[in-house]
Amino acid sequence: MLRTHTCGELRISDINKTVTLCGWVQKTRKLGGATFIDLRDRYGITQLIFSGDDENSKILGQEGLTREMVLKVTGTVIERESKNKNLATGEIEIKLQNIEVLNGSLTPPFTIEDETDGGDELRMKYRYLDLRRNVVRKNLELRHRLAIETRNYLDKLNFLEVETPVLIKSTPEGARDFVVPSRMNPNQFYALPQSPQTFKQLLMVSGFDRYYQIVKCFRDEDLRADRQPEFTQIDCEMSFIEQEDILQTFEGLVKYLFKTIKGIDIPTLPRMTYADAMKYYGNDKPDTRFEMKLIDLKTLVKGANFKVFDDAEAVLAICAKGASEYTRKQLDELTEWVKRPQIGATGLVYARVNTDGTLKSSVDKFYNEEALKNWATACGAEKGDLILVLAGAEEKTRKAASELRLEMGNKLGLRDKNKFSCLWVIDFPLLEWNEGDQNLLASLAGRWHAKHHPFTSPKPEDIELLNADPGAVRANAYDIIINGVEIGGGSIRIHNKNLQAKMFDVLGFTKEEAQKQFGFLMNAFEFGAPPHGGIALGFDRLCSMFGGADSIRDFIAFPKNNSGRDLMIDAPSEITDEQLKELNIENVIKKN
Amino acid sequence: MLRTHTCGELRISDINKTVTLCGWVQKTRKLGGATFIDLRDRYGITQLIFSGDDENSKILGQEGLTREMVLKVTGTVIERESKNKNLATGEIEIKLQNIEVLNGSLTPPFTIEDETDGGDELRMKYRYLDLRRNVVRKNLELRHRLAIETRNYLDKLNFLEVETPVLIKSTPEGARDFVVPSRMNPNQFYALPQSPQTFKQLLMVSGFDRYYQIVKCFRDEDLRADRQPEFTQIDCEMSFIEQEDILQTFEGLVKYLFKTIKGIDIPTLPRMTYADAMKYYGNDKPDTRFEMKLIDLKTLVKGANFKVFDDAEAVLAICAKGASEYTRKQLDELTEWVKRPQIGATGLVYARVNTDGTLKSSVDKFYNEEALKNWATACGAEKGDLILVLAGAEEKTRKAASELRLEMGNKLGLRDKNKFSCLWVIDFPLLEWNEGDQNLLASLAGRWHAKHHPFTSPKPEDIELLNADPGAVRANAYDIIINGVEIGGGSIRIHNKNLQAKMFDVLGFTKEEAQKQFGFLMNAFEFGAPPHGGIALGFDRLCSMFGGADSIRDFIAFPKNNSGRDLMIDAPSEITDEQLKELNIENVIKKN
Repeated sequence: MLRTHTCGELRISDINKTVTLCGWVQKTRKLGGATFIDLRDRYGITQLIFSGDDENSKILGQEGLTREMVLKVTGTVIERESKNKNLATGEIEIKLQNIEVLNGSLTPPFTIEDETDGGDELRMKYRYLDLRRNVVRKNLELRHRLAIETRNYLDKLNFLEVETPVLIKSTPEGARDFVVPSRMNPNQFYALPQSPQTFKQLLMVSGFDRYYQIVKCFRDEDLRADRQPEFTQIDCEMSFIEQEDILQTFEGLVKYLFKTIKGIDIPTLPRMTYADAMKYYGNDKPDTRFEMKLIDLKTLVKGANFKVFDDAEAVLAICAKGASEYTRKQLDELTEWVKRPQIGATGLVYARVNTDGTLKSSVDKFYNEEALKNWATACGAEKGDLILVLAGAEEKTRKAASELRLEMGNKLGLRDKNKFSCLWVIDFPLLEWNEGDQNLLASLAGRWHAKHHPFTSPKPEDIELLNADPGAVRANAYDIIINGVEIGGGSIRIHNKNLQAKMFDVLGFTKEEAQKQFGFLMNAFEFGAPPHGGIALGFDRLCSMFGGADSIRDFIAFPKNNSGRDLMIDAPSEITDEQLKELNIENVIKKN
Repeated sequence: MLRTHTCGELRISDINKTVTLCGWVQKTRKLGGATFIDLRDRYGITQLIFSGDDENSKILGQEGLTREMVLKVTGTVIERESKNKNLATGEIEIKLQNIEVLNGSLTPPFTIEDETDGGDELRMKYRYLDLRRNVVRKNLELRHRLAIETRNYLDKLNFLEVETPVLIKSTPEGARDFVVPSRMNPNQFYALPQSPQTFKQLLMVSGFDRYYQIVKCFRDEDLRADRQPEFTQIDCEMSFIEQEDILQTFEGLVKYLFKTIKGIDIPTLPRMTYADAMKYYGNDKPDTRFEMKLIDLKTLVKGANFKVFDDAEAVLAICAKGASEYTRKQLDELTEWVKRPQIGATGLVYARVNTDGTLKSSVDKFYNEEALKNWATACGAEKGDLILVLAGAEEKTRKAASELRLEMGNKLGLRDKNKFSCLWVIDFPLLEWNEGDQNLLASLAGRWHAKHHPFTSPKPEDIELLNADPGAVRANAYDIIINGVEIGGGSIRIHNKNLQAKMFDVLGFTKEEAQKQFGFLMNAFEFGAPPHGGIALGFDRLCSMFGGADSIRDFIAFPKNNSGRDLMIDAPSEITDEQLKELNIENVIKKN
């Protein structure tokens, strides 16, 4: 080792030791005849001191010390006169005997500080410098720790980590696949896995009993903010279990991680049906850090000649506690906010329950105080509360009300990043109608689409509805939600060949298509498939949740931007004609 | 859980308990009025017993019990009359009250036994059944354990596991890349990483200090036996270290794994220079479980008018201990063996040192007993030994002698799979001349090629040879060898931008090419790169070494065959025109 100690470990008990440290120059300052250097490495910062007129000044040459220069220094640990309580090494400093410059550094394009002056693009381009910042590195240390503890927990429960292949077969019924032309098998392509779903089910057929993997997955989606073309999941599967076993096991994992990593005791996770989540939160991933449920006012408000409500399919209210004194300006802003295309409401009705008990609404023309009192009762609104009402088409209004609820949660400070509210959402619909989804191939529009994936089992009592009313069939499927974010989800799988074939039929696969794409799985089910089920947790998102951040990007060492580009290495990029030719492909754009 | 216990856990202390087990029918037999079933799961086998005329026979129906059927059974633990000492559960059996068939099974295409009757192709096609076999599953359990212990060891030494991206940039200077067309960036391609080399170096520039990852890598090579297009490596990098630190740290890892997993104490690893390995073993990955070094007889044998030796560039002997009584037939077979094209020798000369002390050779016409005695002295041959001599062109002969040595090691039982001999080979050449290698793009032939990779640092004392005699420059590079297999290798990297640029120059890159492909790395070196180095261990191979197997294939859950095909899922395969069109590529073969 070039060093005897790291920059984070020397203490008062080390005084008088001769030590050698290596690290980066964080900053320097001169005071009297002395020069002070803060030397930084991954483990901390240690203060160095040398007098300006000695040998070392000569060594450093004309240009002297610059930020981010790499030094190897030797000196004696001495007690600091003015101690720095904020620094683990703050009681000591190193009186230098020798400085060796291991490497110079240009001036970084942004400051290597917790609060940097670098913008997103610049930080991504120079990600290797961005990663030097404590805050970013700590995110990745957290990620490391979460992975280790996840493995410890699952290993103790007899889960085996099994690596599944990355070069697999294209099954574009889900999101789009990334594909890989095969040189050795001309005209054929591998695909990168959207998840190891079929492989983990095959491992259950193999009797592996309990499988897990922390694994990269790939989806060629149009990227929204906070989606990455490659992402990591904690992927798990168990045999001879029922839904309850999966919920217990992975509730246990989440509790274990909160306890071990953050020292937080999470109470037993409540369970909410999908139907209730949609009814009370307008959302299948409710943020339950705060109440403010959606209240259906439809029957209460109809027939008052207020056309907006009379014509509406849905009239939904929320009660914003303690917000009755919102100003007209604030309410106007909120109205503009709900009318944004992303939210899509046509307007906002409000009713104040004033602190003196009087009620006042934006629709007094149609509803007298008596009527408003009924609203207040329905909403559980008390003195000082504000009722906000949206109306319109069912689905759109519910979605808008959900967004409004979250926005009011933000405004009222109810979404504390250091508070964690976890729950299970269960009883999801098995299928949803694909009207045309930009993340699916166009040829799949106008068909039923598996809400989770085609291997999810329907609830036995709903199987008979598969033909008559596919949309009403509920699945043995569950999501784990933390603070309004879907952290993971899974299902009990189909393990019966005939039911699986039926499912492909409902999804619009011909027998031939199903056999071609998933024949291996259906064949496997002929040889003694056990009952099984599993779950996958989004690891990037879990990390960002634990790190108290909204974005996953700073919990990924080398993320891609919203166009799927790595700005640092400049990928994707063109490849050579020689490569294209070997792969038997031509580029349409290049050719034309 | 559908079960109360696994099939591997019940003991004599559990007698009289009512238990429920789930598993697969391994075999059944009838004895008197009773039926015995061996029920199998991942954890073991438990014997079940029920009398033939009770309810259960009706439940099982006409077809009765078939192999690999999935059962859920409930019964009472009773003591077995005839105990089976070979089975952990052999002291008990379950007297059944209830049998439920969870799933039926067709007859498997091969037997699910340790010794199966299934051929390779069939086993690969039905890999999910092959994985049910104890021997295959145990390999993957070993793999899981090796991964966990590797992480434990490295975590304790402050290594951080950091995931590096899978969708990166094509840098075809090494082996061929697999590429991935980008839909969002038309005309551009990602590449799959051949290793995370540049990313781990960037993490060192970032100050991560100690990095590791157990990571999938990809090489589009013409597959030989025991090569896979996707493989896994334990990838590591450290900063502020010298070669000695890497050797110590990873020698420590290998020792720790042998001790923890196999209970074997491995002695300090010897170190051998590349030059010595080639000289004494004809091979840069010597199998040091046995001696039998190559002996240079050239000066000793020249001038005896034996044209084969007189004309030869190299005359190399090995001494096969105790083999003097090899029959003429055995020697003829050996001669045929060395003449096979894979070995490439033109013939084989032998000299026996008989047990009575006389000497007899196949070239007595040219060499009298006195001369042969000199051979024996040079070879350290004693009474009862056999000297085998090959002659011809230097490189070819050395390679053939190396192969002959290994073959004689096999024949003489010197390559015990339960004996482990580890060593470091150091001081590799930095460069090798690429005459034209089928695993490289044709356009790279006739150039110097990095023996490890272009980031490996030359030994400081050899740098001045880079222009004058590139082939003579030694690298700060090292391989770890176990039983003649290269388990891993690495190097101290270049951390100086100018030296890196010089290296690209020697490798025949223009400044523009180097900048285009590796500009990000050279730029990173401008901002304070620390001295660093690392290693990568082939994880698949490490697992097969620990498992005492020659092939890595059964240590990979879902391997590909020698054409890069997954026979089970039938990949690669054609993709739809819709997919091709979205990716802006056309298939040349399909089009024509």
